[in-house]
Formats: sequence, C-alpha cells, structure tokens
Amino acid sequence: MKRINTIESQVRSYCRSYPVMFDKAKGPFLFDKDENKYYDFLCGAGSLNYGHNNPILKKEIIDYLNQDGIIHSLDLTTKSKEEFLNSFSKNILATRNLNYKIQFTGPTGTNAVEAALKIARKVTGRTNIISFTNAFHGVTLGSVSATGNSHHRGGAGTSLNDVTFMPYDGYMGKKINTIDYLRRVLEDNSSGIDMPAAVILETVQGEGGINVASSKWLQSLQDLCHEFGILMIVDDIQAGCGRTGTFFSFENSGIEPDLIVLSKSISGFGLPFSLLLLKPEFDKWKPGEHNGTFRGNNMAFVTARATIDNFWTTQELEAEIAIKSNILKTRLEKIAQENISSDVEVRGKGMIYGIDCILEDLASAIQQRCFENGLILETCGSDDQVVKLLPALTINENDLIGGLNILEKSIKQVMSQSDFQKKLEDWVVQK
Amino acid sequence: MKRINTIESQVRSYCRSYPVMFDKAKGPFLFDKDENKYYDFLCGAGSLNYGHNNPILKKEIIDYLNQDGIIHSLDLTTKSKEEFLNSFSKNILATRNLNYKIQFTGPTGTNAVEAALKIARKVTGRTNIISFTNAFHGVTLGSVSATGNSHHRGGAGTSLNDVTFMPYDGYMGKKINTIDYLRRVLEDNSSGIDMPAAVILETVQGEGGINVASSKWLQSLQDLCHEFGILMIVDDIQAGCGRTGTFFSFENSGIEPDLIVLSKSISGFGLPFSLLLLKPEFDKWKPGEHNGTFRGNNMAFVTARATIDNFWTTQELEAEIAIKSNILKTRLEKIAQENISSDVEVRGKGMIYGIDCILEDLASAIQQRCFENGLILETCGSDDQVVKLLPALTINENDLIGGLNILEKSIKQVMSQSDFQKKLEDWVVQK
Amino acid sequence: MKRINTIESQVRSYCRSYPVMFDKAKGPFLFDKDENKYYDFLCGAGSLNYGHNNPILKKEIIDYLNQDGIIHSLDLTTKSKEEFLNSFSKNILATRNLNYKIQFTGPTGTNAVEAALKIARKVTGRTNIISFTNAFHGVTLGSVSATGNSHHRGGAGTSLNDVTFMPYDGYMGKKINTIDYLRRVLEDNSSGIDMPAAVILETVQGEGGINVASSKWLQSLQDLCHEFGILMIVDDIQAGCGRTGTFFSFENSGIEPDLIVLSKSISGFGLPFSLLLLKPEFDKWKPGEHNGTFRGNNMAFVTARATIDNFWTTQELEAEIAIKSNILKTRLEKIAQENISSDVEVRGKGMIYGIDCILEDLASAIQQRCFENGLILETCGSDDQVVKLLPALTINENDLIGGLNILEKSIKQVMSQSDFQKKLEDWVVQK
Amino acid sequence: MKRINTIESQVRSYCRSYPVMFDKAKGPFLFDKDENKYYDFLCGAGSLNYGHNNPILKKEIIDYLNQDGIIHSLDLTTKSKEEFLNSFSKNILATRNLNYKIQFTGPTGTNAVEAALKIARKVTGRTNIISFTNAFHGVTLGSVSATGNSHHRGGAGTSLNDVTFMPYDGYMGKKINTIDYLRRVLEDNSSGIDMPAAVILETVQGEGGINVASSKWLQSLQDLCHEFGILMIVDDIQAGCGRTGTFFSFENSGIEPDLIVLSKSISGFGLPFSLLLLKPEFDKWKPGEHNGTFRGNNMAFVTARATIDNFWTTQELEAEIAIKSNILKTRLEKIAQENISSDVEVRGKGMIYGIDCILEDLASAIQQRCFENGLILETCGSDDQVVKLLPALTINENDLIGGLNILEKSIKQVMSQSDFQKKLEDWVVQK
Repeated sequence: MKRINTIESQVRSYCRSYPVMFDKAKGPFLFDKDENKYYDFLCGAGSLNYGHNNPILKKEIIDYLNQDGIIHSLDLTTKSKEEFLNSFSKNILATRNLNYKIQFTGPTGTNAVEAALKIARKVTGRTNIISFTNAFHGVTLGSVSATGNSHHRGGAGTSLNDVTFMPYDGYMGKKINTIDYLRRVLEDNSSGIDMPAAVILETVQGEGGINVASSKWLQSLQDLCHEFGILMIVDDIQAGCGRTGTFFSFENSGIEPDLIVLSKSISGFGLPFSLLLLKPEFDKWKPGEHNGTFRGNNMAFVTARATIDNFWTTQELEAEIAIKSNILKTRLEKIAQENISSDVEVRGKGMIYGIDCILEDLASAIQQRCFENGLILETCGSDDQVVKLLPALTINENDLIGGLNILEKSIKQVMSQSDFQKKLEDWVVQK
Repeated sequence: MKRINTIESQVRSYCRSYPVMFDKAKGPFLFDKDENKYYDFLCGAGSLNYGHNNPILKKEIIDYLNQDGIIHSLDLTTKSKEEFLNSFSKNILATRNLNYKIQFTGPTGTNAVEAALKIARKVTGRTNIISFTNAFHGVTLGSVSATGNSHHRGGAGTSLNDVTFMPYDGYMGKKINTIDYLRRVLEDNSSGIDMPAAVILETVQGEGGINVASSKWLQSLQDLCHEFGILMIVDDIQAGCGRTGTFFSFENSGIEPDLIVLSKSISGFGLPFSLLLLKPEFDKWKPGEHNGTFRGNNMAFVTARATIDNFWTTQELEAEIAIKSNILKTRLEKIAQENISSDVEVRGKGMIYGIDCILEDLASAIQQRCFENGLILETCGSDDQVVKLLPALTINENDLIGGLNILEKSIKQVMSQSDFQKKLEDWVVQK
Repeated sequence: MKRINTIESQVRSYCRSYPVMFDKAKGPFLFDKDENKYYDFLCGAGSLNYGHNNPILKKEIIDYLNQDGIIHSLDLTTKSKEEFLNSFSKNILATRNLNYKIQFTGPTGTNAVEAALKIARKVTGRTNIISFTNAFHGVTLGSVSATGNSHHRGGAGTSLNDVTFMPYDGYMGKKINTIDYLRRVLEDNSSGIDMPAAVILETVQGEGGINVASSKWLQSLQDLCHEFGILMIVDDIQAGCGRTGTFFSFENSGIEPDLIVLSKSISGFGLPFSLLLLKPEFDKWKPGEHNGTFRGNNMAFVTARATIDNFWTTQELEAEIAIKSNILKTRLEKIAQENISSDVEVRGKGMIYGIDCILEDLASAIQQRCFENGLILETCGSDDQVVKLLPALTINENDLIGGLNILEKSIKQVMSQSDFQKKLEDWVVQK
Repeated sequence: MKRINTIESQVRSYCRSYPVMFDKAKGPFLFDKDENKYYDFLCGAGSLNYGHNNPILKKEIIDYLNQDGIIHSLDLTTKSKEEFLNSFSKNILATRNLNYKIQFTGPTGTNAVEAALKIARKVTGRTNIISFTNAFHGVTLGSVSATGNSHHRGGAGTSLNDVTFMPYDGYMGKKINTIDYLRRVLEDNSSGIDMPAAVILETVQGEGGINVASSKWLQSLQDLCHEFGILMIVDDIQAGCGRTGTFFSFENSGIEPDLIVLSKSISGFGLPFSLLLLKPEFDKWKPGEHNGTFRGNNMAFVTARATIDNFWTTQELEAEIAIKSNILKTRLEKIAQENISSDVEVRGKGMIYGIDCILEDLASAIQQRCFENGLILETCGSDDQVVKLLPALTINENDLIGGLNILEKSIKQVMSQSDFQKKLEDWVVQK
C-alpha cells in the first residue's frame, strides 16, 4: 500500500478513508485481499445499482469476448450498439411515452454534461446557464462552472463563467419558494441575470447533501422554462437508473426535461458509459461536432442492453425498491432520532438516503467506525456533514438490514465515546 | 440501419463514411455482419495499437471476470490497480530513467487534458496556456479552448478563453523558427501575450494533419519553458503507446515533459482509460480536487498491465515498428509520387503516416474508394485533406502490404476516373 | 436638426425625447434657440446639482483662463490640483472624520468604477464581484458587467463575467431580508458563489428606479463584508454630492465604505471629472497602473474646489435640501395619489425622487406631456416605468413648486385623455 | 508637495518624474510656481497639439461662458454641438471624401475604444478582436484586453479575454511580412484563432515605442479585413489630429478604416473629449445602448470647432508640420548617431518621434537630465527604452530648435558622466 502511494498522485481520495486493498466483489459485498467482507453502501457512488458482478451481465460480457465481438469502434455502427438502441428505445422510452434522440458522448458523466450545456447554448444562442446551490455536475471546465462546491471550483485555476447559481428548493427555508425569486429575475429587464440557455439540475442532489426537490418546485421550474424558452436539463447521473424508485428520477414529478444526462449505472456493470437524451427538436449537432475516442463502449452496450432486458421490462424491480425504500427510511429515522438527536434530518427517496449529522466530524467519525465494522459508505453535503447510503437496488432485505445494523452499532459507539452529544446541544442552543 | 439513425443523435460521424454494420473484429481486421472483411487502418483513431481482441489480453479479462475481480471501485485501492502501477512504474518509467507520479483521471483523453491544464494553472498561479495551430486536445470546455479546429470550437456556444495559439513547427514555412517568435513575445513586456502556465502540444499532430515536430524545435521549446517557469505538457494520447516507434513519442527528442497525457491505446484493448503523468514536484492536488466516477477502470488496469508485460519488457516491438515504418514510408511516397503528384507530401513517423492530398475532395474520394475496396482509414488536417494511416503496430508485414495494395489500387481508380489531375495542376500553377 | 441627425450616430438618446435645439442655460432653467424656457428637473442626470452656470463658479473659470492657468496636465502636480485636494481633504473628509486617499481616474464615472473593481480584485486576489439587481454602474466592459440593465448588457457583444448579482434591499418583498440570502451563500462552501473581492452598490439606485436601501440593510451588508474580508464599494456617482441630503449618500446610514466613487456633480459645473476614494490600506496601486489622458482636469479642479468652498463649509445647503425634500415628497405623494392611483409608489430621499407609474407607457406619456408644458425630466426603472425628478439642489422654493405644478398639470392631462386609468385597474386586479 | 502626496493615491505617475508644482502654461511652454520655464515636448501625451492656452480658443471659451452657453447637456441637441458637427463634417470629412457617422462617447479615449469594440462585435456577431504587439488602447476592461503592456494588463485582476495579439509591422524582423502570418491563421480552419469581429491598431504606436506601420502593411491588412468581413478600427487617439502630418494618420496610406477613434487633441484645448467615427453601414446602435454622463462636452464642442475653423480649412498647418518634421528627424538622427551609438534607431513620422536608446536606464537618465535643463518629455516602449518627442504642432522653428538643443546637451552630459557607452558596446557584442 505505502509503495503505491508514492506512485499514485496525491489526488486520490476514497482510498484514504478505506486504507485496505480490495480484490474481489460480489452482489452487495466487497472483499479485501485478506478475504474480509464489507457491505458496500457506497456502490461506486451510484454506479453499481445492480450490485457487483451480476452473473447474468458477466455471462453476456464473457460470451461477447469469446465471439470476438467488437470492443472499440469510435461511433461506427455495431451490432451491440444497435441492440442497445433498440432495447432502450422500446423498453425505456416508448413504454414511458417519451421521445428522445440518444447521443453517446465520451463515457463519463461530465462529458455528457458538457455536451448538454453545449447543445443548449447552440440551439438557443444564449450563453448563460442556471445551476443551483449545492449542485454537482463534474469537474471538467464546462461542468465545474455549474458545480457549486468551492473545493472543486478552486481546482480550475481560472475564472468559471457563464453560469448563474440560484437557490435550490428549500434553500431559503421552507416558507420561501425559490422559483418565485428565479421568476422575478428573469422577468426583470435589469436584474443583471442574463436570459439563460438552460437550467441544469439534479432532482435529488447527491453530492450536495441528499436534497430532494418537490414535484411542485420541479413543475414551477418547468413552467418557467417553457415560458422563457429555456431548456431544462436533468442530470440523472446519480439519481437515475432506478435509484430513486423509477428508471428516471423525475417520472412521477410531472415534468419532461428537454435534455437528460445518464451515466454511472447505465451500463449496469460499472463500465464507463454515458448518454445524453435530447428531445428531437434540439438534436441540432453537426456531425462530429462533439466527439471523443470512447463514445461507443461496446462492452457497455452489451451490459446496458442486458440490464434493461433483465430489470426494466417488468415492474418487479420498482416494486422491490419501494419495499426496501420503506425499510431504509423508517430504520434510518429511528436510528437518527434515538441515537443522535431529534434535530437530525433524514432525507432521501427510493434507495438514496442521507442522515444530516449537522457536524462534519460526527459524519466522518460514523463513516470511519462503519468501515471498521464492515460497512462502506461515504459522506456528502457542503461540509461533508451528511452520511450517505446508496445500497445496491438488488440487495436482498436481509443484507440491507445487515448493513443498517452495522450503521446503528457504529453510531452508538461513536456517540457513547465522544462529546458529540454536547456539541449537538450547543448547536441547537446557538441556532 | 435506417431505423437506428432515427434513434441516435445526428452528431454521429464515422458511421456516415462507413454505412455498414460491424459485428466482429480480430487483429488488424473488422468484419461486418455479412462477414465481409476490412483492413482496419483507422484502429479506433489510435486506440487499438495492438489490434482487435488480442488473445492474450482477452484471456486476462475473461479470467478476471471469472474470478469476480472488482470492476468498478472509484479510486479505492485494488489488486489490479496495484499490479498496473507496479508494472508501469518498473517497465515504462524506471527503464527510461523517468520519474512521474501517476494520476487516474476520468477515462477519456479530454479529461486527462483538463486535469493537466488545471494543475498547471494551480501550481504556477497563471491562467494563460500556449497551444499550437492545428492542435487537437478534446472537446470539453477546457480542452476545446486549446483545440484549433473551428468546427469543434464553434460547438462550445460560449467564449473559449485563456489560451493563446502559437505557430507549430513549420507553420510559417521552413525558414522560420516559430520558437523565435514565441521567445520574442514572452520576453517582450508589452506583447499582449500573458506569461503562460503551460504549453501543451502533440509531438506529432494527429488530427491536425500528421505534422511532425523536429527534435530541435522541441528542445528549443523546452529551453524556453525552463527559462520562464512554464510547464511543458505533452499530449501523447494519439502519438504515445508506441505509435511513433517508442513508448512515448518524445523519447528520442531530448526533452522530458513536466506533464504527459496518455489515453487511447494505454489499456491496450480499446477500453476507456487515461493517465496523467506528473513530475513529482507538480503533484500539488488536494485529495479529490479533480475527481470522477470512472477514474479507476479495473478491467483496463488488467489489460494495460498485460500489454506492458507482453509488449514493453523487451525491445522487440520497437524493432518491428521500425521495419514496418520503413515499409510504410517508402511505399506511401512511391504511391503518392507515381499516382498523385510530386507536390504531394507524405508525413509521419513510426506507424502514423499521412498523405497530404492538397484537395479535400481528393482525400475524401480516396477514403471512399478504399472502403469499397475493403480498407478503412480516415482523413485529417485543417481541411480534411490528408489521408491518414494508423495500422495496428502488431500487424504482420503481409497484412500491412495487403492494406497498402488496396490503397494504391483505390488511388489509381480515383485518379483515373476524375479531374483531380487537372485540379492539382491548377493548384500548382496558382501557388 | 434633421441634418445633424444624419451626421450624429443613431446611438443618441435624450435628444429624441426633447427634439429642440438648446442654446443657453441658467440656474434651474434651459433655454432653446427660440428662447423658450424649460424647468430642468433632469439636471444632466445628476451632474448639475448646483444648477447651470452658477455665477461664482463661472467667474472662477474665467479668471483661471485669463491667467493662462494650466488646462491639461496629465497627472502632473498643479496649483489648481493642490488647492482642490486641500479643500476636499479638509472640508469634506476631515469634518466627517473620514480618511481616504484620493485617486483621479479618467474623468467619467465608469472609469472610476473600473478603477474601483480593479483595485478590489488586486488587493484581495479574488475575481468575483457582487453587484445588485437593478444596479447601474456604467457601460465600459468592466462596469457593464456589474450593470443589471439588459439593454446595456446586450451592447457588450461578449460575455460579461466575474460578477454575481444578488437581490437589492426589498427585491424579494418587504418580509425577506436579502442579506440573509447573501450570507447563506457566502457561508455555504458549495453554493457556487465564489467569495467576492467586493460588493458594489448605490445606496439609492438612480437608473434602477429610485430604490432606497435602508440603513439596516446597509449595515448588515457592511457587517458581512467585514466578516469575509470583502471590500464595500459605494457608487455615489448619482446619489453623492448632496443629492440625498448629505454630501455622501451614506452619511447617516452607519456605514463607512472601503471605496467610494464620485463623478457627475463633483466638478459642480458639469465638467467631466471623477474621483475614487480609497481607504489608505487599499491604495496598493503601482505608479501609473490605472492611467488615462484626462485624469487631471484642471478646470474641474478649479470649479470643484470652488463648489466645496461655497456650498460645503457650512450646514446651510443641507438644511435647505431638507426643506425642499419635504416639499418634493409631500407634493409628489399627493399628486400621485390624487391623479394616478393609490397603488402608485413615490420613492426617494433628499432631492432624488421617483413616481413608479407601474406602466411604462404612462411614464413615457407623462414625460412627453411635461416637455410640452415646459418641464424636462427623465424616466428610469427596469421598464422605464418611473418618472424621475432631480431638480437642482440650489433651486428656490418657488421654482421647485413651479416645476411640480407643471408635473401635476401634465399628469392630469395624460390621465384624462387616455385609458391609463383602466389599465391600472386591470393591473391591480391581475396582481 | 509632500503633503498632497499623502492625500493623492500612489497611482500618480508623471508627477514623480517632474517633482515641481506647475502653475501656468502658454504655447509650447510650462511654468512652475516659481516661474521657471520648461519646453513642453510631452504636450499632454499628445493632447496639446496646438500648444497651451491658444488665445483664439481661449477667447471662444470665455465668450461662451459669458453668454451662459450650455455646459452640460448629456446628448441633448445644442447649438455648440450643431456647429461642431457641421464644421467637422464639412472641413474634415467632406474635403477628404470621407463619409462617417459621428458618435460622442464618454470623453476619454478608452471609452471610445470600448464603443468601437462593442459595435464591431455587435454588427459582426463575432467576439474575437485582433490587436497587435505593443499596442496601447486604454485601461478600462475592454480596452486593456487589447493593450499589450503587462504592467497595465496585470492591474485588471481578472482574465483579459476575447482578444488575440498578432505581430505588428516589423515585429518579426524586416524580412517577414507579419500580415502573411495573420492571413495564414485566418485562412486555416484549425489555427485556433477565431474569426475576429475587428482588428484594432495604431498606425504609429505611441506608447509602444514609436513604431510606424508602412503603407504597404496597412493596405495588406485592409485587404485581409475586406476579404474576411473584419472591421478595421484605427485608434488615432495619439497619432491623429495632425500629429503625423495629416489630420488623420492614415491619410496617405491608401486605407479607409471602418471605425476611427479620436480623442486627446480633438478638442484642441486639452479638454476631455472623444469621438468615434463609424462608416454609416456599421452605425447599428440602439438609442442609448452605449451611453455616459459626459458624452456631450459643450466647451469641447466650442474649442474643437474653433480648432477646425482655424487650423484645418487651409493646407498651411500641414505644410508647416512637414518642415518641422524634417528638422526634427534630421537633428534627432544626428544627435543619436554622434552622441549615443550608430545602433540607436530614430523612428517617427510628422511630429511624433522617438530615439530608441536600447537601454531603459539610459532613456530614463536622458529624461531626467532634460528636465533639469528645462525640457519635459517622456519615455515609451516595452521597456521604457525610447525617448519620445511630441512638440506642439504649432511650435515655431526657434523654439523647436531650442528644445532640441537642450536634448543634445542633456545627452552629451549623460553619456560623458556614465558607463552607458560600455553597456551599449556590450549590447552590440551580445547581439
């Protein structure tokens, strides 16, 4: 371990919290090289919604390799691409009465975000983009301009421009509808906020602290967009692919975005892969205008297609998520209330949940203790004060409860052996 | 085919030149679904230096999958990562007396370029970057700012800033050393060119038309960088991994860049994977400052390590490339002189070569005819006037000659059945 | 008239509303070439606080010219500059216990604003600037970036960056303290709002619609600035030099800005002249770093010094303004309530007042009718819906009332002969 | 003096080189408060082409003041404006067969430059501007982006964007036509230089070191502009108003710019005043789109009109300048050759001349010694290595020779009492 730390750049991050060498993985579990088992509630930051090494998908890849299927093909037409396109089009879009063109961008979320921002600017002829407080959309220059986090913004080394940040749902307290403010500045000829090409948003902010936008807020935002000819971009990189209970995070919200960004779990197997969905009227690209070497990842076509065929042709997975979501929510609220404080908020939807621990070092201590007890999860939020849970959607109830039991035990240990209780009380008084 | 064109975005490009459905691939060949065979001199735009589905690499992947090796792990430490780092460090860096830290960025070339530009700006506290005419570094916002091509720049929809373009080697004719001009503006307090954080360059410009920088030019540039505290970034995405005859394209040039970007063929198997190499003194990242979901592609760790172990522990491959480079160069010059015009230039190094056809529609006609005759290759250059050849480094001599035979035949057909001869003569007169 | 319209650029604006040729001016009156007299409540958009051709100042200029005093001297030291500096320092700064360095920028408000933004960025090392909705700070590139008006922003032809607009006092309704929102985003590491070098604001927004910031709001803003090391820039170009009842607009607000911009009435005679006042600790300029040909306007030194000596060595003018302010406010409220609507707001302070007519064409109709009746005034606000009154501070009560009488008569005429009454009722119903 | 240095910002510059208090001025002379006389070859950096306090102009101002002429009128139509427009249109434009609309911008050169850049971007829909090495166009944000000097650029505190610097005539040595390079990058689709809205240039670079563009170079540039639909902006702020021998600096160069910027000497009396001349087809402003408080400086209308009527209705002044230009050139070359070195270059045109002293401290020593001997002049160039002479155009031959005598005497003193001779020899050897 030490040796490779002298070789790898100090930019590495997750490995600092989990200083062991991992070797194998299966379903909801990771195993280190000494065969210790860990519940994985991190799930590749949302890239492993179907768990590790799902045997159906694995078999498909191996078969494909054995047949000398094409691995790399730029954007040439391949059989694996055709099969993916057909399945996605039929099973994901058509069944939801959605009509989008599909663009394969470079196989990272940030690349698809960049493509979305570009095409929005191109078709509207406007340059400004509205993003929201606590948003995370990636770290390449276009995307990081729309990312709120000062840690990531500071890395740019140059001005981050042409993006205006507006308050997300709930940011100004429960009584203020932040869309009213957004409407005001857009209607006002001298607000200084240039008419934007697009708004970009996560319906559930993953890195930003598990903040859930209400359907009403989303609808008001969509109304505003329609009124002013602004494109609505939903970044469903983390919240999509079933994470919030439906394939797209916004399905029950009464909105239909103009552009949708998918990545992370879209391949189903943890492979680099990204999609940009565009309403046909906005597919105004010239050939090759947004290109990239790996924009057709054929192995990912294979697994992505298999994922759809196996998980998204029936309602079964959604029904399962609903049940497990309920377990998660109920148990987390109980754990938080009983062990931390009644001021602690549990937020989330589907199978993405967070406990807002208020104190950064409390969240960090819980994360650390969980790891020692065999559960891997991460923290998020503007001060990393939120413990975040992303169990595999396919985890069985026993394992879900097994992981939650470790969380509870770890929280009890942390709270009993430290002065967090007092700090929380001080915080309540101060507030 | 038609159907999927209604589903996929019109941004698709290569598939327009090759309107068939590809299904399988093996070594230097692609096969369409009707089992027609094509010589592949496109090679994934340089991502398939070791050909398609190399059996050694394929076996390693299948074994890894069968053992439930970890596929996705963010930047956690895994056994496959350790093994790659050790092999790269020992067999690539140490044997060449090079000392770099290794950063895994998002698995696309453009993401590694963005990381390089960021860290250069961060460590120098300067914002300007020097790029060169006809450069191509990617299409995300940071990278496209350093990309010369107006087609790609125009897609940005917003100003591309903080990059100054300077003339590449030979851009102002053979008599003018363009580094003299660069030196002049950097020494001059009122040239208007702000002191840059870095220069970024390809030693052989792949998309820009197969322009080869001389060692002398590269050394003068390095001297200038050292004198003014400017970081030198070599983008070896296309020219690296053996393409020009050595692992790094600059090995025999007498320079040692501060930052090196690798992608395309680094996985060896066509998988999305990228590296940024940093001289240790510039590895000033804060943990996670440049992050990304797919920055540890474990399958790519496996194949990349196997590629190094199989191809780069002896001098054999380099010796082979030298022989095939000679065949390529000699034959191409003969073909061009005899069939097109004595004004046509053949440029290249190692196994990246281009025929500058002067006329865009001539290059396009040759490409088209080659395809009909069973050879796939692309065009490049500012007007797509250069026919570009990137055969697999591992192609055997027979197959190399087989492909070149098709090229010659196709050029003969094009020249005999059209008025290009006359157009070329007109061009010579005009000039 | 027609002829010169073919010579002068179509950018001309005021002259379109007042299509006569003016020839002479005296105190509060303008005279056209046919000797028609107009009450001037426009006053050079605030540049003529002491009326036209004040005889004391006129005599000083003529004497100076007759003695061959230096007219143009770049920033050389001249006797007239020394006398101005001494008087301003003693009579304006010292008597108010203020300590500022004085910078002569190019003789326009926008140039002084540019200098303020530059020095704030330079001393803090930050690039972002906070400006406020409905702000107007000028139209050169740096200033227009901080100007809210889309008409002016649109003229830039390029992106306007590095400025974040925040809601001004009252912008989100009376119940919401907009400083709370500003505090929230500055305290939040992932709000996306980069820590600013400075806030820039008008205490009374002149072009933005005569919006008056409360002392409490200004103090909260100053507290926030102090807490985060942000410089506070007050743009007192229009509101300064006595316009709001005291020399500086903020005198009774409990704040002390870090930088103050003065222009318009600072020469006292309508001559181009601007000042930037800097707290000594922020005077970090290198010699000549912000320069300009006309930064020492000696005739303006002469009149500015004379203005101070004649109007600002006693409390007399302030006392007079207080009385006339009261007349203005009372009468305007009466006029608006009785003749337009009870929903119409009269806003202002000192001798800058506006009637918010709600409807743009109503304000425009009033302006037009006033002109026909011999009163010149302008409209302002995001939709030019506010009738704005800037009578000379030195106007006598009779003339003030004379002007107001014309205003009342004009409003009556407009309201009786049009359907504005109905439109206003519709607006109330809609709201 | 000391006292006012504690009051005035440390940004002051000229006054540091000439630490006396000036009081009066007449024709080509300045007088300090002790009645010491100085030859003024600085002339307000070109703002006093007709000398100080020209009695004809002075009389006109005093008469205007005595009649209560309007001093400040925003952009209202006034009699003084009409008279200026008529005279300029008839005597300057029509007699030269030129057709331009006239725009009154804020009364500073930088403001007129900003207006020119804006309208060029607006009418072309492009954002990039081509400026040239060693250019100086002002220090507000838009203008400083097009200014080469790093001292001024560094003051901006933010990125200076959307301007590309190209080599000025002669910048790459006498053998290279820099327009060839500009043509190459504009014709090349992948040069990275975005097609510009405009080029902006001085025909004689004043601050940049008295670099004179040849007519051939200007014509090639104009051809290129016409070919690519690029607007040509001539910044004639310093070189215009007769300074180079004709009213406009480009009159004998065979070009006709699309936009012309005038300031400095246009008022004739040293008053703040600026014009932008636009070919009628580019006068696409919306009313008030570029505005400003002092854009109609009526006293300047009066003197500018009188200047034209007195100096530009006959060929007399031009003839006089030609004679004095010859004296200047011949004498300066003799002085430089005999006293400094045969490598020293004398550059200039009309009555703007510079001696390139190669060494910065030599130029500075000469400037200092001249001052002690009663001659005021400034230095310029990228390292302030050029002694610059801008005598009044109206100076008589005796006074011109008087000033040159002081220059020669000062140079002799400097060269005899220092080791500059040795340093220059070292420089020649090194070169």
